[in-house]
Amino acid sequence: MNIPQSNLPRIVIIGGGFAGIAIAKKLRNKNVQVVLLDKHNYHTFQPLLYQVATGGLEAGSIAYPIRKVIQEYKDFYFRLTSVKEIDTKNQKIISEIGDLHYDYLVIATGSKTNYFGNKEIERNSMAMKTIPQSLNIRSLILENFEQAVLTKDVADKNSLINFVLVGAGPTGVELAGALAEMKKAILQKDYPDLDVSKMEINLVQSGDRILNTMSEKSSKAAEEFLLSLGVKIWKNVRVTNYDGRTISTNSTLTFETATVIWTAGVQGAAIAGLDAKSLIEKVERIRVNQYNQVAGYDNIFAIGDIASMETDKYPQGHPMMAQPALQQGDLLGENLIKLIQNQPLKPFEYNDKGSMATIGRNKAVVDLPKYHFNGVFAWFVWMFVHLFSLIGFKNRAVVFLNWVYNYIRFDREGRLIIRPYKKKSFTTFTSDEI
Amino acid sequence: MNIPQSNLPRIVIIGGGFAGIAIAKKLRNKNVQVVLLDKHNYHTFQPLLYQVATGGLEAGSIAYPIRKVIQEYKDFYFRLTSVKEIDTKNQKIISEIGDLHYDYLVIATGSKTNYFGNKEIERNSMAMKTIPQSLNIRSLILENFEQAVLTKDVADKNSLINFVLVGAGPTGVELAGALAEMKKAILQKDYPDLDVSKMEINLVQSGDRILNTMSEKSSKAAEEFLLSLGVKIWKNVRVTNYDGRTISTNSTLTFETATVIWTAGVQGAAIAGLDAKSLIEKVERIRVNQYNQVAGYDNIFAIGDIASMETDKYPQGHPMMAQPALQQGDLLGENLIKLIQNQPLKPFEYNDKGSMATIGRNKAVVDLPKYHFNGVFAWFVWMFVHLFSLIGFKNRAVVFLNWVYNYIRFDREGRLIIRPYKKKSFTTFTSDEI
Repeated sequence: MNIPQSNLPRIVIIGGGFAGIAIAKKLRNKNVQVVLLDKHNYHTFQPLLYQVATGGLEAGSIAYPIRKVIQEYKDFYFRLTSVKEIDTKNQKIISEIGDLHYDYLVIATGSKTNYFGNKEIERNSMAMKTIPQSLNIRSLILENFEQAVLTKDVADKNSLINFVLVGAGPTGVELAGALAEMKKAILQKDYPDLDVSKMEINLVQSGDRILNTMSEKSSKAAEEFLLSLGVKIWKNVRVTNYDGRTISTNSTLTFETATVIWTAGVQGAAIAGLDAKSLIEKVERIRVNQYNQVAGYDNIFAIGDIASMETDKYPQGHPMMAQPALQQGDLLGENLIKLIQNQPLKPFEYNDKGSMATIGRNKAVVDLPKYHFNGVFAWFVWMFVHLFSLIGFKNRAVVFLNWVYNYIRFDREGRLIIRPYKKKSFTTFTSDEI
Repeated sequence: MNIPQSNLPRIVIIGGGFAGIAIAKKLRNKNVQVVLLDKHNYHTFQPLLYQVATGGLEAGSIAYPIRKVIQEYKDFYFRLTSVKEIDTKNQKIISEIGDLHYDYLVIATGSKTNYFGNKEIERNSMAMKTIPQSLNIRSLILENFEQAVLTKDVADKNSLINFVLVGAGPTGVELAGALAEMKKAILQKDYPDLDVSKMEINLVQSGDRILNTMSEKSSKAAEEFLLSLGVKIWKNVRVTNYDGRTISTNSTLTFETATVIWTAGVQGAAIAGLDAKSLIEKVERIRVNQYNQVAGYDNIFAIGDIASMETDKYPQGHPMMAQPALQQGDLLGENLIKLIQNQPLKPFEYNDKGSMATIGRNKAVVDLPKYHFNGVFAWFVWMFVHLFSLIGFKNRAVVFLNWVYNYIRFDREGRLIIRPYKKKSFTTFTSDEI
């Protein structure tokens, strides 16, 4: 990997998400050599991916170059690569671009979509965990509409403009709301030769309420907001398969649709090589102690979504979202320096600042630890928090400008099929009329 | 194509570039049925492609949804498709999504890169005529740098950061300047573990001056600007081949490089089916009379880059740039309505408003018909003209914001490899150090 040898201890960080960037910032100029690895050369602000998918924001506005973050850090290296395996015996990682020795290893690989083993769903549905995936969803929505315009068969036409979102966590709910607004703001205006009122947005949830990690009050408010936007909500329905045309469920209910967006589950993005005992089955997260140290290893740590720290309050580990990742990254940065200096470490304690979700124009729900509210004020709080969580002044300015424009004009200009999503053709149509 | 039959005359426009959009606007609510076809669902503002390629602007800022342009036009249809052939005998076009009858056909397909028949150059070099191509160039530049960081072989390393631009028209010159600024603004800061001062930008031109369609004064000024930015200019050098590693020329001069950007020529993007007599060989443009009527046909017209109207002042047709396209689109829109109403047509006369090119920060050259100037004021004129030529208020605002940011901060944030450019591996390196 062409990293210079030095007398400084080498800390290797795998992943430049919220956790990885947080620890990188803490290790700035701390007399250690740091190597940060990621398969993308940018950090992704995942909470706004759904706005990229629905044309409200450009991809560049929610991505930030990793090399720019560490530009002025001493003894800091970035390498663009995917890590294949950890060789704990020889203290090295094995990557696409070669091996690298570590003194301390920080695994911050985050999470990936969980299909619960169903390969057919994985093959036929869309996920939304990365920017390219969001752009694929955007392209597919628009391609479906272009195809629907051409399609004479009514069943095919309806399938093309029927969208089914599986999983009603924050991602599914926010995407459902954004799709409903996209219908009004763009699609009804852009496709006058199509009956866009037939477009359906179906949100399917296996549990008995949406946003089930939030308060009941917020669940209820979010449900009302979605219904007012025309989203159909299906609770207590478990999707069992999707063959590319038809969704089957655990009841007699089925959906005919060309587009399934799967947000029903996440699992840790684990890497091969760790002792099986340190990996939690099914969720694929890595078991860590209160210092984020991986069970069984002195010099390997895991932070963020991939790490599962089982505490009294969080027996299944902390929620897989930005806040625990940021806080663990911050603390581990400080603890690693302490560890190197033989000072006592500080145990992690999660400071739950609350959670929120936006459903649409003037519509959001916010859960603070002791207070839950929703509506216009919640929506402003949501915007404010997200705007200031973005890295980079310019991204903030461009996102703000887009939001103001979209709000005032009831419009979204990002309806561009720049990279077509090459889907297996859903309908084959012969158009012989002239 | 599912276009309703009507009693109105049907005008089919192929292409939504400057010419196609100009005529579409003129045909708004004119008691004709209009079908606009394009292989992209957006209009591209080509003069700023080079800024997308070098990370200064996001793709979305220079693209505009075609359906939005025609959103409120009556009897107007857009279809996303590529036209394969014109069947003049049966008055229909044959496309990927079916056939379509026309009463009047307007060919506005623009131009494409001309490799003068050299398939090896075509295969190994990059073109910059579309947004996806510009994004490919951006990805490749950054991928080359990521690879150079890993490469120990000095010759390979130098090849990876040696950029050769063939053709010194406005596109080549503007791209060379932007690359030189990218080197300073981004690459030298982002790659501290690489000797970026070794990065070369070579601009190769077969003629004896750069910008040879502009005034000699502007050529000279542009050359001085480029030299001050560190660009190497090679005049009177004709590139004869590029095998993916080495450029050979008509002299003993060769270049070792992983990246060739080919802006040495354009040709019309012709469509099969027209009489051979109406097509001009080599440049592939369509011969039209002073009403943009294709030679030999009453109801087929061509406008913009694809059209060649041979006049005393322009014996080879008008220059292939935005201004003639816009003006021909405007006039043909009016003339078609006159034709339908049996009124006399107005012949086209090109109003040359001048031309300009920007080389970098505070550096541009402007040729007005009777006055040539360059420097800071020319740069402001260039920015002003381009900003106000963009379609859409939001695009203008976002581009302006980016330019201000880039200017003040000496930075460009668009250094994102969102869609990797899958190049055949230039170097194979084994990295066995750990």
